[in-house]
Amino acid sequence: MISFTSFYQEIADDVLHHWLEDLPAILGKWQREHKHGELPKWEKVLKKLPEHPPVHLDLESEVAIGRADEVSESEIAKLTSLLSIYKPWRKGPYRLYDIHIDTEWRSDWKWDRLKDQISPLNNRLVLDVGCGNGYHMWRMLGAGARRVVGVDPSTLFLCQFEAVKKLAGGKHPIHLLPIGIQDLPAIDAFDTVFSMGVLYHRRSPIDHLFQLKNQLRDGGELVLETLVVEGDEQQVLVPHDRYAKMNNVWYLPSPAALMLWLTKCGFENVRMVNLDTTSLAEQRSTEWMPNESLVDYLDPNDITKTVEGYPAPLRATFVATKPYNPLS
Amino acid sequence: MISFTSFYQEIADDVLHHWLEDLPAILGKWQREHKHGELPKWEKVLKKLPEHPPVHLDLESEVAIGRADEVSESEIAKLTSLLSIYKPWRKGPYRLYDIHIDTEWRSDWKWDRLKDQISPLNNRLVLDVGCGNGYHMWRMLGAGARRVVGVDPSTLFLCQFEAVKKLAGGKHPIHLLPIGIQDLPAIDAFDTVFSMGVLYHRRSPIDHLFQLKNQLRDGGELVLETLVVEGDEQQVLVPHDRYAKMNNVWYLPSPAALMLWLTKCGFENVRMVNLDTTSLAEQRSTEWMPNESLVDYLDPNDITKTVEGYPAPLRATFVATKPYNPLS
Amino acid sequence: MISFTSFYQEIADDVLHHWLEDLPAILGKWQREHKHGELPKWEKVLKKLPEHPPVHLDLESEVAIGRADEVSESEIAKLTSLLSIYKPWRKGPYRLYDIHIDTEWRSDWKWDRLKDQISPLNNRLVLDVGCGNGYHMWRMLGAGARRVVGVDPSTLFLCQFEAVKKLAGGKHPIHLLPIGIQDLPAIDAFDTVFSMGVLYHRRSPIDHLFQLKNQLRDGGELVLETLVVEGDEQQVLVPHDRYAKMNNVWYLPSPAALMLWLTKCGFENVRMVNLDTTSLAEQRSTEWMPNESLVDYLDPNDITKTVEGYPAPLRATFVATKPYNPLS
Amino acid sequence: MISFTSFYQEIADDVLHHWLEDLPAILGKWQREHKHGELPKWEKVLKKLPEHPPVHLDLESEVAIGRADEVSESEIAKLTSLLSIYKPWRKGPYRLYDIHIDTEWRSDWKWDRLKDQISPLNNRLVLDVGCGNGYHMWRMLGAGARRVVGVDPSTLFLCQFEAVKKLAGGKHPIHLLPIGIQDLPAIDAFDTVFSMGVLYHRRSPIDHLFQLKNQLRDGGELVLETLVVEGDEQQVLVPHDRYAKMNNVWYLPSPAALMLWLTKCGFENVRMVNLDTTSLAEQRSTEWMPNESLVDYLDPNDITKTVEGYPAPLRATFVATKPYNPLS
Repeated sequence: MISFTSFYQEIADDVLHHWLEDLPAILGKWQREHKHGELPKWEKVLKKLPEHPPVHLDLESEVAIGRADEVSESEIAKLTSLLSIYKPWRKGPYRLYDIHIDTEWRSDWKWDRLKDQISPLNNRLVLDVGCGNGYHMWRMLGAGARRVVGVDPSTLFLCQFEAVKKLAGGKHPIHLLPIGIQDLPAIDAFDTVFSMGVLYHRRSPIDHLFQLKNQLRDGGELVLETLVVEGDEQQVLVPHDRYAKMNNVWYLPSPAALMLWLTKCGFENVRMVNLDTTSLAEQRSTEWMPNESLVDYLDPNDITKTVEGYPAPLRATFVATKPYNPLS
Repeated sequence: MISFTSFYQEIADDVLHHWLEDLPAILGKWQREHKHGELPKWEKVLKKLPEHPPVHLDLESEVAIGRADEVSESEIAKLTSLLSIYKPWRKGPYRLYDIHIDTEWRSDWKWDRLKDQISPLNNRLVLDVGCGNGYHMWRMLGAGARRVVGVDPSTLFLCQFEAVKKLAGGKHPIHLLPIGIQDLPAIDAFDTVFSMGVLYHRRSPIDHLFQLKNQLRDGGELVLETLVVEGDEQQVLVPHDRYAKMNNVWYLPSPAALMLWLTKCGFENVRMVNLDTTSLAEQRSTEWMPNESLVDYLDPNDITKTVEGYPAPLRATFVATKPYNPLS
Repeated sequence: MISFTSFYQEIADDVLHHWLEDLPAILGKWQREHKHGELPKWEKVLKKLPEHPPVHLDLESEVAIGRADEVSESEIAKLTSLLSIYKPWRKGPYRLYDIHIDTEWRSDWKWDRLKDQISPLNNRLVLDVGCGNGYHMWRMLGAGARRVVGVDPSTLFLCQFEAVKKLAGGKHPIHLLPIGIQDLPAIDAFDTVFSMGVLYHRRSPIDHLFQLKNQLRDGGELVLETLVVEGDEQQVLVPHDRYAKMNNVWYLPSPAALMLWLTKCGFENVRMVNLDTTSLAEQRSTEWMPNESLVDYLDPNDITKTVEGYPAPLRATFVATKPYNPLS
Repeated sequence: MISFTSFYQEIADDVLHHWLEDLPAILGKWQREHKHGELPKWEKVLKKLPEHPPVHLDLESEVAIGRADEVSESEIAKLTSLLSIYKPWRKGPYRLYDIHIDTEWRSDWKWDRLKDQISPLNNRLVLDVGCGNGYHMWRMLGAGARRVVGVDPSTLFLCQFEAVKKLAGGKHPIHLLPIGIQDLPAIDAFDTVFSMGVLYHRRSPIDHLFQLKNQLRDGGELVLETLVVEGDEQQVLVPHDRYAKMNNVWYLPSPAALMLWLTKCGFENVRMVNLDTTSLAEQRSTEWMPNESLVDYLDPNDITKTVEGYPAPLRATFVATKPYNPLS
């Protein structure tokens, strides 16, 4: 059974300890009531994964855990087969005992684009909202973060994360909680908060920005990535129905509009550090994610448009600071 | 003490009876904990108002309650003096025993612009969200509504409403609850829901639209009035700070954008029935509202702009229908 | 569907109106979640009962509703057959259109023993805790009570009560709530509170006495009937297992012990007004209650003992007053 | 500030981990809202106490922490003065760096009477309900308990406990929670549960017995000590008002009555292991508890009676087992 015990132990004497007043009740309810039909199967896979810590571990230039020569060929075959059960793998890539998990997204490219634009993560307490299977969390740890907490409600992503963590030896200060940010009590404690690929799924982007702000300590840094459209600060696309075949897309502001919103919500030093049309090489079907991908979401006759006729995905990354509160 | 007793009695055997499971607790808490400093004084005024029902009552062409010849001159003087304590009077005008309460807003003009654009209110159950002191609620009653419920958290507006109701004889099926719409449990029961002058104050207009929809019965009608800007369906103004000296203004969409949002939230038959730049004759200081008004909010050199340089207030009214649910 | 609407309407402008803050939520939950398997059948019976008010009604000397000559013979036959579905009938007897519901208990005898020992009920607000099917509630109404509220969690008793009330014309100020006293918010409002046949079923008789006290107004009167044993004020029988074949029996104090407890809980003017060994004529099987009764609970060789060897049922009735609070 | 951090860390991967779903919220509320007027002063004392672990520690034959020769004379004087601020000391005695805290009670005598009557505590998880300042908890630890949790709502007792724990070096698996047993979620996990000196303060002794049972694992052992009176299983003294000058005394059953209650609540193997009239040597005023004590609670002319005329304090200790549940 997936357990949050070590998370509770770590935060009990940490600046996050106030979360003990709420999160064990929320996660206990999740453990008792959450009934994803595949969870028992996925937990069986977790149990079968090897427990011994890897000899080699690289989280800095990639997520590489163990090497092929640390285990036998038959173990590699078994591991490959176990990890296949967790398909589709969307965020990555991972190199696990030299098994190359080639994921839908080259999330490493996104990381490379932003890693030098943000405050160095060394010794920082980091929150990753909408963390997926946790790929970037490992890179944050590799960049020196003191502790990384991710939240994402997907059960499959949680299992993928727990699998990678077990293969990495299990003891790292990195935790994924299967809840949404709206369930996270405001704690005003994180040094850096990431929200990547979340805002356009929110009915209320303003409330999302306030929730992110309420997780940051005074002086902390927000890293926000989302879909945008071109235009001035009054330009906001709300798709009639789907956008790039995605349900549940609400607001795609222009960069100028989003920077205005951030400022209005009380962030300072707001700046866009990246603007990038997602390429067909960055998001595509692979052996480990055999379903439809970006190419299927675009107009076959004009890849500058989605199948619905909207501008093709354009992603921007913003960095901003929560001001010091003169009263606190 | 302001009491909600007659409201509870009326709804107990009505389609709104489910509200008894939540509202008495919410309003009981309001009664115990709400501590507007002026409330005791305002309640004293309420007590001193005459109780006898008026001989003449016109709610159809104006809100006229009683006539000067029904009472003595000294009573008129006393009544005028009592009602003055409730200044500023914003929504109106009211004619109370021929005392002319000349309010900041000519709310009757707004009513005249929309009354023929909506489904006849005869025998309908009506909700007015953000009802102010209830002026339009009386007009709705005058138009034949079976019962009118208004919500507005302002304590002064509640007292003005209760004063008018007491002067009208007290027994009308019209009730103002001093709570916000977010405290109203979804009831899927109203024939018509009005939201006028509220949406631009909401951090999340989409959630507001869903809350309005959840009050309507299937087939019910929404009447939505809000500030808009000119532009296409991707045009949305979010003011950096204040708008027309108002704090707490979030989204001013174009009419096209707002109609898109309504459709996206599941409304049908969405149409704009009025678009109107507020004139200096419609909103202005009066004897009964001696504070600043619209003229002070506009650029003195260019009244097409607010003092902040945004387009001057342009208000649009939309009508839409909640579809019949094929499953219910 | 059994509804509490008229109860809410009655109490909305009454001293009980604070209950609106809690009871509709509790009873709404009961309506949604309560799933006694027989309830649909029992409600169908309720629907089929005649609605017209009876010509003759006597609640003072007995509970007699209607006379045989008010309806046809076939209606009598149908009514008899409908009421039979509610067997077993424990508390009574009732005379309904001259159908004699001969119940297990001669509850009228108990009433006759106590009615002259208590403060006259004329114009009093009365609560009957553990009211069964409500027989005594009708007698309280017959004695002039202004309103009678009963609580008893049994679904069958509720249906029997609603049936009698419908036959009586439906409009009487008498209400049975299917909840336990522990769910009743303290209201300090009743003139008289009855608790008959409840205390020996409570794990904590002291808490029961405080709950009864919290329903009474200052100066109000408690009427408490329960099983007792002989002995001094330190004599308390706690049966090892069952008592007279009843599960869930906890404390049977002596009268002296119980009077001490009442005094310790803050009651004044405590006195025993009746002490009576239940006779085999007062509690027995009948056509309307064909199951085991008292004779089966007693030792066949010695009816001064229960089958378990304890003293046979001895019941005492106490009257006590809640003092006036000098602070209120 | 008194913190429960190490308690949370210890239980997070223990059989008690379910408590994390409730206790941090309860204790967080205590930390925020509890406002004993002396707490700030008492916490200042705690801060000033030395942190270094003692060289000598004996918890087996007494509670002796450190020796005089481990510290300087001036440190002894300072420590004596700090500990005096926590007067009155009721449960003990403690020997702290050879300072002899001579407490009101010779709690060691009680321990000596019962320690050989109970299952050996070696490696057991132990709960002490109504633990006072924790004297017996240290003895339980000295007897080999794996972990000891105590609950007692008194703020002074908590501070005394924390002081002793700090002097003992701070790291022992022993924790006092400042709450009542009614706030402890049922956990069915302890090997041994003690309740000494609590039952006669409870309005509902039966509910108390069930609460104790719900903390025990199947097969676990209850140790219950309380005031009793002589007599058969129907003998129960409920004092009219005070008993031995104590408010809030409810039931003093005979040993036979209490054993019946234990059996009725589902305990097995119920036996009395001690019965003892409290002597004037066991409970008396001392330098560290200068207030009234037992001699003042007894009739000066007849020490077999309390000042109220009841039998003088007679205490009995019972041991019982929670049965194995055949269903679990």
